[in-house]
Amino acid sequence: MSMSLDGFIAGPNEGPDNGLGDGGHRLHELAMTGGGADDVEATRRLGGVNGKVLDEFMATGAVVAGRGTFEPAGGWGGDHHDGVPIFILTRHDPADLRQWPLVTYVNDVTTAMTRAKEAAGDKNVLVHGAGTAQLALAAGVLDEIELHVIPVLFGQGRRLFEGLAPEHVELERTRILEGEAGVTHMHYRVQR
Amino acid sequence: MSMSLDGFIAGPNEGPDNGLGDGGHRLHELAMTGGGADDVEATRRLGGVNGKVLDEFMATGAVVAGRGTFEPAGGWGGDHHDGVPIFILTRHDPADLRQWPLVTYVNDVTTAMTRAKEAAGDKNVLVHGAGTAQLALAAGVLDEIELHVIPVLFGQGRRLFEGLAPEHVELERTRILEGEAGVTHMHYRVQR
Repeated sequence: MSMSLDGFIAGPNEGPDNGLGDGGHRLHELAMTGGGADDVEATRRLGGVNGKVLDEFMATGAVVAGRGTFEPAGGWGGDHHDGVPIFILTRHDPADLRQWPLVTYVNDVTTAMTRAKEAAGDKNVLVHGAGTAQLALAAGVLDEIELHVIPVLFGQGRRLFEGLAPEHVELERTRILEGEAGVTHMHYRVQR
Repeated sequence: MSMSLDGFIAGPNEGPDNGLGDGGHRLHELAMTGGGADDVEATRRLGGVNGKVLDEFMATGAVVAGRGTFEPAGGWGGDHHDGVPIFILTRHDPADLRQWPLVTYVNDVTTAMTRAKEAAGDKNVLVHGAGTAQLALAAGVLDEIELHVIPVLFGQGRRLFEGLAPEHVELERTRILEGEAGVTHMHYRVQR
């Protein structure tokens, strides 16, 4: 997840025609959490630390996201990367939603994460979107957090960490990487 | 400033008898932003990365804080460290407030920072407290940000970055240090 130093993952005034919020593109210039495979290829080709982290992002074996991430991205054309299975959280009847071969609609985050972990095998699962990450964290099914901290303060917008219960979740810091363009990649494992 | 990974510098339910909020001591176990010289000596004696950062903290040449930080800390006994001048923001008439030889009461943040920078000479100025840091940032008189990111999620509490204007403030990442106990020290310079 790409985040400003002050904790925002989108600018203010998000909407259907303004998916990243005002100025939100500043967080996605490295295509860290962009709209699928096409967006990240340029950065991967650059190599370096940011390219390495993007390689990891694209080496995941399954994707979990909410419809609020999936649909504005055009369902990533039905294939986020490399044909890995995609699990989309929704409370709607799947029969009413567009069907894609790789996409399974699931109505709770624990089921989505369990199935995604099974499908991914030895690989990691990519959790895509702040709302899904918050749900997975609250449900105790998020194992790791990778933040790409962008050297900017947003001041206003949508926060990654919002609406969590007032309970301490202890973390193990597992890796800090200083990427290009002032981006710092912070990796933590959730302690349980 | 010691901050949880999710951006909190105090737990919920802050009050006169609960200065750090519920569970807020978790952020101050390294005495990074504690109640003055006595609190930090133990960590400094440990050396290491955290000790080095504390040495820098204690090598500042002036302190700026608000009354909400200053008074609950007992005015640091009138001497935060090494007898450096202390500038306390307040809208009250200074004549009504307790007088200390090293303390000057000032009613706006720009004046406080200007005088503190003059007083500090070649040394840095320590800005103590989230409210003062926010005011200094908004007024364009905060030059650097040093965050001590503690490996914990708080979920609720008081945020460091709150109530800022919806304007991007670009930062230059100047130093990332991996301290002991999972603490990551992130240093940025504000770009203007």
